Amino acid sequence: MTNEKWFRHVVRVRYQETDQMGVVYHSNYLTWFEIGRTELIRALGKPYTDFERAGLLLPVLEINAQFKQPARYDDVIAIYTKVSELSSLRISFDVEVRRWSEEDALKNEGEAIFLSQKTDLRNGELLVSGTTRHVWVNMEWKPVRMDKSFPELYNLLNDSIS
Amino acid sequence: MTNEKWFRHVVRVRYQETDQMGVVYHSNYLTWFEIGRTELIRALGKPYTDFERAGLLLPVLEINAQFKQPARYDDVIAIYTKVSELSSLRISFDVEVRRWSEEDALKNEGEAIFLSQKTDLRNGELLVSGTTRHVWVNMEWKPVRMDKSFPELYNLLNDSIS
Amino acid sequence: MTNEKWFRHVVRVRYQETDQMGVVYHSNYLTWFEIGRTELIRALGKPYTDFERAGLLLPVLEINAQFKQPARYDDVIAIYTKVSELSSLRISFDVEVRRWSEEDALKNEGEAIFLSQKTDLRNGELLVSGTTRHVWVNMEWKPVRMDKSFPELYNLLNDSIS
Amino acid sequence: MTNEKWFRHVVRVRYQETDQMGVVYHSNYLTWFEIGRTELIRALGKPYTDFERAGLLLPVLEINAQFKQPARYDDVIAIYTKVSELSSLRISFDVEVRRWSEEDALKNEGEAIFLSQKTDLRNGELLVSGTTRHVWVNMEWKPVRMDKSFPELYNLLNDSIS
Repeated sequence: MTNEKWFRHVVRVRYQETDQMGVVYHSNYLTWFEIGRTELIRALGKPYTDFERAGLLLPVLEINAQFKQPARYDDVIAIYTKVSELSSLRISFDVEVRRWSEEDALKNEGEAIFLSQKTDLRNGELLVSGTTRHVWVNMEWKPVRMDKSFPELYNLLNDSIS
Repeated sequence: MTNEKWFRHVVRVRYQETDQMGVVYHSNYLTWFEIGRTELIRALGKPYTDFERAGLLLPVLEINAQFKQPARYDDVIAIYTKVSELSSLRISFDVEVRRWSEEDALKNEGEAIFLSQKTDLRNGELLVSGTTRHVWVNMEWKPVRMDKSFPELYNLLNDSIS
Repeated sequence: MTNEKWFRHVVRVRYQETDQMGVVYHSNYLTWFEIGRTELIRALGKPYTDFERAGLLLPVLEINAQFKQPARYDDVIAIYTKVSELSSLRISFDVEVRRWSEEDALKNEGEAIFLSQKTDLRNGELLVSGTTRHVWVNMEWKPVRMDKSFPELYNLLNDSIS
Repeated sequence: MTNEKWFRHVVRVRYQETDQMGVVYHSNYLTWFEIGRTELIRALGKPYTDFERAGLLLPVLEINAQFKQPARYDDVIAIYTKVSELSSLRISFDVEVRRWSEEDALKNEGEAIFLSQKTDLRNGELLVSGTTRHVWVNMEWKPVRMDKSFPELYNLLNDSIS
């Protein structure tokens, strides 16, 4: 897993996401984590919503997050996501939330890409880093073996880390 | 409909509901409106969740809200709700969101009641008033005739306004 | 005001915005309304956050919204916003929330633009339409005369509708 | 710290907190964690909002949460919170989110209490457990020595764990 790839997706902080400390309320970073993994899956070739319609759910088992600097209203936020662990039953993602300057944003906004291993940096000021662990379940919340039941998605994810 | 009854339910403002203006972000009042009508139905004798499990949904058709004063973090909020219109196909609710002093709260908190027509006032400082209009639909979002399909709920609601 | 201009901004529905009816929870449309007016002001030449830092707040006085069709997870949503009324003390916005097909999205996503009066349509399936009315206030929530205190923003907004 | 005390506060799941999996969207548990620590501080004798008005903020440094079972709409949720670490610069809370039956709720709802060490159990089905770590800062986000600057709150918190 030496050449694992980070995926980047950019959002702008919404007014609704702030609180009276004048910063982003901390639970919103979890929403951004989810946007990061959703967009990563879309970039692999097929939207997550297609798999969910086919009966696959991906609830969160565990979350760990370190909050270093607060995001603020209207900040341009680069969400970096990578698959950090993958088995037929479980998946984990590493996430970094970074703040871009408006100049960075002008150069790159809207462009959701996998970073090239050799040349691209995870640029921007690091605000929050974290890990989320998930289990694949079906509509009855029973565990699903991904490699058997959804080989297409499993292979896409596997390719993204090898 | 001269003797229509107001129902009162009390909540406390959450930190998550504030924004960087230092007040409650305006869309949260709609969540409180929903809590008001849900608790009104519960107080009539049966929780809304029972009806939803039986296949009845109550999406919003229209919302109108006037914002007079902002609610702030940790305020004690009395939500007053009444059924303002009821037919076999539609229902409307009037809502008033009022702020209580801590003294009011100590006297009354946690007590969700229908106001007695003769003696009870909708006390507290008026912050937001509004109306929501809804249509009864089934799981396929097709209109449902309440009086035929859910006579129990229909009669409970009808009794609450007559 | 015959040639008033609509501004378009595109978002994608977040998982967090759905509820157990399988559609977008209705209060989230108000957040989208806000994103629409924020991005309109940015497109006029200066971000709203600059004005807020200078002491100008824009709380909501009144909201009216009609819900025609529900938005769903992962839908591409075009938010159309225009200034419908402007005075030195108040401002109103009209908003339309429309759903795009993935094909529409591929052609246009990320492009936030003022529609050209002659040739552009507000395309997409209409989901929600609404109006928000606001008052300009300062940090102490006292009314502010926009034309005197913030002539730059006032003129930008005025130009956008004439 | 053998006789540390757990504090209990009860909420009901809001419709707005659900997502299209039919369960509570996971970031909402963080909001409940916050309600738990806020209500713990209130129960110690003085609301957190008083300290914030005096210039004390309590941002989150780190969060860890394990999700065992999902909460669902209208569930009665008992939030158990205790101070797990306290120094002049930092504080940590342990949290357990448990589901009560309606019978449990009828017996206890609305009663926010410190559990008696000898006799009370943290009853209910365990849904989520977690830990949050915080740092005390002032309005400029500079670290604050709690024992010097806010001895009243520091002593209240210290008493709660010894």
